[in-house]
Amino acid sequence: MKREAVTEKICDAKRMKGLTWKAIAKKIDPKESHILITAALLGQMKLEPAQAAKAAKLLGLGKMEEKLLCEIPYRGSLPQVPPTDPTIYRFYELVQVYGTTWKELIHEEFGDGIMSAIDFNMTMERLPDPKGDRVKIVMTGKYLEYKRY
Amino acid sequence: MKREAVTEKICDAKRMKGLTWKAIAKKIDPKESHILITAALLGQMKLEPAQAAKAAKLLGLGKMEEKLLCEIPYRGSLPQVPPTDPTIYRFYELVQVYGTTWKELIHEEFGDGIMSAIDFNMTMERLPDPKGDRVKIVMTGKYLEYKRY
Amino acid sequence: MKREAVTEKICDAKRMKGLTWKAIAKKIDPKESHILITAALLGQMKLEPAQAAKAAKLLGLGKMEEKLLCEIPYRGSLPQVPPTDPTIYRFYELVQVYGTTWKELIHEEFGDGIMSAIDFNMTMERLPDPKGDRVKIVMTGKYLEYKRY
Amino acid sequence: MKREAVTEKICDAKRMKGLTWKAIAKKIDPKESHILITAALLGQMKLEPAQAAKAAKLLGLGKMEEKLLCEIPYRGSLPQVPPTDPTIYRFYELVQVYGTTWKELIHEEFGDGIMSAIDFNMTMERLPDPKGDRVKIVMTGKYLEYKRY
Amino acid sequence: MKREAVTEKICDAKRMKGLTWKAIAKKIDPKESHILITAALLGQMKLEPAQAAKAAKLLGLGKMEEKLLCEIPYRGSLPQVPPTDPTIYRFYELVQVYGTTWKELIHEEFGDGIMSAIDFNMTMERLPDPKGDRVKIVMTGKYLEYKRY
Amino acid sequence: MKREAVTEKICDAKRMKGLTWKAIAKKIDPKESHILITAALLGQMKLEPAQAAKAAKLLGLGKMEEKLLCEIPYRGSLPQVPPTDPTIYRFYELVQVYGTTWKELIHEEFGDGIMSAIDFNMTMERLPDPKGDRVKIVMTGKYLEYKRY
Amino acid sequence: MKREAVTEKICDAKRMKGLTWKAIAKKIDPKESHILITAALLGQMKLEPAQAAKAAKLLGLGKMEEKLLCEIPYRGSLPQVPPTDPTIYRFYELVQVYGTTWKELIHEEFGDGIMSAIDFNMTMERLPDPKGDRVKIVMTGKYLEYKRY
Amino acid sequence: MKREAVTEKICDAKRMKGLTWKAIAKKIDPKESHILITAALLGQMKLEPAQAAKAAKLLGLGKMEEKLLCEIPYRGSLPQVPPTDPTIYRFYELVQVYGTTWKELIHEEFGDGIMSAIDFNMTMERLPDPKGDRVKIVMTGKYLEYKRY
Amino acid sequence: MKREAVTEKICDAKRMKGLTWKAIAKKIDPKESHILITAALLGQMKLEPAQAAKAAKLLGLGKMEEKLLCEIPYRGSLPQVPPTDPTIYRFYELVQVYGTTWKELIHEEFGDGIMSAIDFNMTMERLPDPKGDRVKIVMTGKYLEYKRY
Amino acid sequence: MKREAVTEKICDAKRMKGLTWKAIAKKIDPKESHILITAALLGQMKLEPAQAAKAAKLLGLGKMEEKLLCEIPYRGSLPQVPPTDPTIYRFYELVQVYGTTWKELIHEEFGDGIMSAIDFNMTMERLPDPKGDRVKIVMTGKYLEYKRY
Repeated sequence: MKREAVTEKICDAKRMKGLTWKAIAKKIDPKESHILITAALLGQMKLEPAQAAKAAKLLGLGKMEEKLLCEIPYRGSLPQVPPTDPTIYRFYELVQVYGTTWKELIHEEFGDGIMSAIDFNMTMERLPDPKGDRVKIVMTGKYLEYKRY
Repeated sequence: MKREAVTEKICDAKRMKGLTWKAIAKKIDPKESHILITAALLGQMKLEPAQAAKAAKLLGLGKMEEKLLCEIPYRGSLPQVPPTDPTIYRFYELVQVYGTTWKELIHEEFGDGIMSAIDFNMTMERLPDPKGDRVKIVMTGKYLEYKRY
Repeated sequence: MKREAVTEKICDAKRMKGLTWKAIAKKIDPKESHILITAALLGQMKLEPAQAAKAAKLLGLGKMEEKLLCEIPYRGSLPQVPPTDPTIYRFYELVQVYGTTWKELIHEEFGDGIMSAIDFNMTMERLPDPKGDRVKIVMTGKYLEYKRY
Repeated sequence: MKREAVTEKICDAKRMKGLTWKAIAKKIDPKESHILITAALLGQMKLEPAQAAKAAKLLGLGKMEEKLLCEIPYRGSLPQVPPTDPTIYRFYELVQVYGTTWKELIHEEFGDGIMSAIDFNMTMERLPDPKGDRVKIVMTGKYLEYKRY
Repeated sequence: MKREAVTEKICDAKRMKGLTWKAIAKKIDPKESHILITAALLGQMKLEPAQAAKAAKLLGLGKMEEKLLCEIPYRGSLPQVPPTDPTIYRFYELVQVYGTTWKELIHEEFGDGIMSAIDFNMTMERLPDPKGDRVKIVMTGKYLEYKRY
Repeated sequence: MKREAVTEKICDAKRMKGLTWKAIAKKIDPKESHILITAALLGQMKLEPAQAAKAAKLLGLGKMEEKLLCEIPYRGSLPQVPPTDPTIYRFYELVQVYGTTWKELIHEEFGDGIMSAIDFNMTMERLPDPKGDRVKIVMTGKYLEYKRY
Repeated sequence: MKREAVTEKICDAKRMKGLTWKAIAKKIDPKESHILITAALLGQMKLEPAQAAKAAKLLGLGKMEEKLLCEIPYRGSLPQVPPTDPTIYRFYELVQVYGTTWKELIHEEFGDGIMSAIDFNMTMERLPDPKGDRVKIVMTGKYLEYKRY
Repeated sequence: MKREAVTEKICDAKRMKGLTWKAIAKKIDPKESHILITAALLGQMKLEPAQAAKAAKLLGLGKMEEKLLCEIPYRGSLPQVPPTDPTIYRFYELVQVYGTTWKELIHEEFGDGIMSAIDFNMTMERLPDPKGDRVKIVMTGKYLEYKRY
Repeated sequence: MKREAVTEKICDAKRMKGLTWKAIAKKIDPKESHILITAALLGQMKLEPAQAAKAAKLLGLGKMEEKLLCEIPYRGSLPQVPPTDPTIYRFYELVQVYGTTWKELIHEEFGDGIMSAIDFNMTMERLPDPKGDRVKIVMTGKYLEYKRY
Repeated sequence: MKREAVTEKICDAKRMKGLTWKAIAKKIDPKESHILITAALLGQMKLEPAQAAKAAKLLGLGKMEEKLLCEIPYRGSLPQVPPTDPTIYRFYELVQVYGTTWKELIHEEFGDGIMSAIDFNMTMERLPDPKGDRVKIVMTGKYLEYKRY
């Protein structure tokens, strides 16, 4: 069984039950970020066994699918790059436009290293604004220095 | 004259004068974000004429180069995609892993639309952490709703 | 269930019932553009619940398919780029030939920004012409200025 | 001599003389669309000899460059596809999202054929709007029917 | 139902009945080129309703398939480009080797325009030759001049 | 010295002297097809020494360039595929649309083989037509049968 | 029915019956090269009807599959290029390393032409060697001269 | 200094002196294959110091170039893949058509391994044939077995 | 039957039985590296018949699947390159960053040759470290010298 | 000034002075790995100022080049991927063949995380072997666990 099949089944159940990702995440585990849990349900992160059990119950998944949710997936959510979907493309565009700037400024502030995408967390929220509400994303990733040896 | 030639000349001057992007940005215009100004110096944004004049003086640029800095560039800073440089790649990887999650959650919170990459601003700072300092990036982009007609 | 399966089922129903997109769109919602509704039926826009209900009834769709039509799709209608189909390729060719010209003239008229493809609408009509009728397309997209910060 | 070299020289002259594309086009030939003439100056269309002579005088071009402006160029203005520049990308995105819709509706209205990108003309203008001005583009292309034989 | 499925069914029927494309085309419509009809059966052109009816009868197709043959297909017959099949690759190679020559000579003879691939017809025949028979292809396409505006 | 440099020098000379490819070809060798000679001058075929000598004299080329014209070039005239130039793209489109049809009909008429692109010749001419003149291209290539062994 | 399905069925039968390609080829036709016949069974060549009949009997194929083996396939055996499989990649690497050398030496010995890959045959055998046996491949392809016209 | 510059200088000298690769190779070292030496001169193999000294003298190369010829190059002779040049493409086509066949037969004869492209040698010669001379290539590569561990 | 289907079935069985790769490998053959056996179960190496029999028994595979495990697979485990999965990407990144360094140092130490990826073995283990445990990979590949001939 | 120009100048100096990378690295800093220093000289790592000063003196570099060696480069050493050079390709092939195996085994031993390519070090040495010496590479990279949040 492929992870994509589980993702499709989850989306089908969510659609028919009229649930939101936030509501699902809250039921699966209110102590973890709903972003992390949504990513897991979309096949990009793994769930802990207890979380998967709740997900299976809530969404009507079988044993195989429940166990698959606990496996570490082959990550990569985009069917092609650059992504054709405009909502996702805008993030890609930020990398295209700001990529070299981020590199220069991380190096200037921290040294020869990277912002980890593994020891990483994020939040996403609505920022009310009279000129039109804004999407606010806060990311923090551990700075990792290139080891000299 | 190509914008890349200006960028190269700026980097040469910065290197020989031992300047930092933050210091350059502060001299060019302390009221604008140093991220925006660094991006402009790297060929991804434009400078205002007064800013370009200061940049030219500080970095020893000619008239043509000063004027080019005020032109809107053909944006796109990456020599190839996916970016081979690890510091930049990690941002690309976030889009790969979280792309569909961001899409789902933006739609759930806001509706059928996108986070603008044009009406957009950001900050980047050091987040002290006993387990290793972190890079903190805060982005806000205006939510734009798909027009129905 | 995948959106492509709904699109295929819609096309099958349209074919067997001998309907046109314009006629279908009119029945689904005469107050919205038939372009928007056709795009939704082809998997590129979403329908409002009332519209989807009418679409389902008209085209013999099930509950799952009706609900899927109300979901925001993963946009991108072309199986590959450049598009191999000549009718679509000609639009792509316009971007290839006029891309830099549009950029220059939008910047000259408006400043550093873009024509939105989100806050966007269009019409398409037949322009009678003795030398051969013409396809007339009118697009308007909101001008969005790059935010300085 | 390559056409790109002429384009670069034209842009250099325009920059140093502080001219706009509209002003240049008006001087070169007020009876032709400034879009067409801008496209020619950017290496995508040819100029007529009298137009090229005026362009050469206005922009300080040599004989070789003047003659090159009268040659039919190898068209294609984008350094890579998809275009990395956001202003141009939005047009590409419209083809991605609306490509199949345009195809269906052109066929429904006209039959088995295409909108010509050769027997084609366009205008671009500012559409004042209290919620933010809009870019308005009107294109007409001759409908060409697939020949049956 | 996808057009590829119809093509596959047609090829299966042709194979089991031991028919040739020429014979099939003659039965479907002796007044149209067998090239055009073969292309339609391979999913690149549409058939007229009367032709499709004959095709359906001859090849044992159902109603859905018959109607699909009358739809304008999403053109593009090659699974990948460059084509891996040697018989097709040779045509691609001609474009690679002669592309710029054709462009120069069409412009020299006709002006700034193209040979239409839409208002286009062709024949293919055997040219007896003592040193080995030759494939002779004659193509004519309408010259289309770039419109000036 | 690269062949592209010779091609560029030839185009420069042709432009400044106001010559046509046909006139140049006639002077170089009136007994060979002007298509073949034009292709050689564009870097896709070789010239015979006597032809190259005439080309050098006519176009003001040096000894190195004259000799380079007699070398068999690394063929391939397109800067990228699919070709962005519309005049050349239309030929590419014919391969895209008719590729599988040509394959089927060559096999049906001749057997398991190809139309050679090496033992190949062609003509291109204007076909007067009241509805608009047409470009007529006649190609013949030797049929080559797959050897069984 | 697709040729790939026949290939898969053949491989399944070969596996379960414990046959070798050489043994299969010998039974199908001992007078033709087992390379040619193996290539046909893998979907890259066609079989003669008598050969296909024997193949069908030996491998338990149905009528449709037998007939498909007599059809000229859409050639191209590699799922992607460069080939990921190391055994095949080494051949690709030879083309990468020796490609220009082969071109130069064929032209030097024969003139302006190619080694045919159509009028072509080959053998593959084991060359005993005390330092480790070697794979010996002998290819001959007809020299084809570019036609001048 | 780049190896390509040496290759270009070698080709220029060869052209002006009217030499052949075979003659050059014989003078550089009559005991090594002229294929190997030609490949080295084209930037794909290295020469031994004594060979490079002779090459430098014969072709008028400087000290830097002579030394570069003794360096192991970054191999890969094709400007793009698939190769656009027909003479080279035919070899690529053989890999495309016969790739899986070679794999199967090498495995059947030798086991789980490859034909080395490193411990490899080849000859190329003219095979007289009344129906047209043939290019004969003989390759032998050491069979390398996948190590089990 | 495709090898991917066997891999999927193996993963399904492993998941439902709660086994680890190490445990499976030990049962299949404790004398071979669990890396090699895991690679075989993932479709990149072959198993010996006795190993496959044990695998089949342990994982509930049928006869066809057991035999397929003994076949030499078409190698290449990545669905696309660069790999989107971060765990695998880091290895790819090492090749990107260190590729030319490895080449230079292998040549400097050994001469003109390669490290074999066929006569190759490896181990992977946990290296305890107070600052965080490390993954330790040891690879050895036979040095293969380019043959001169 | 571009980093590639520094790399080229370093290689030129190394060639003319007859130095090895090991000898250069030892002189620049005997306490750091010669792999790291070689990578820096090839444009993939940075040097410390004292190291760069020694490199400049040893290799005859100017001030600008010395300073550039201390800058963090835009990493990525391969002109194209997959790498065409066989010595480098073999490493790429290991990722292709073992990629999924490494992923599975790292996850099994460590959990949901990666082997860092940043907090990473390696050695490369000659492993004497009577059947042919071997290249031995030892890599260790810090295990980084995906953060849950």
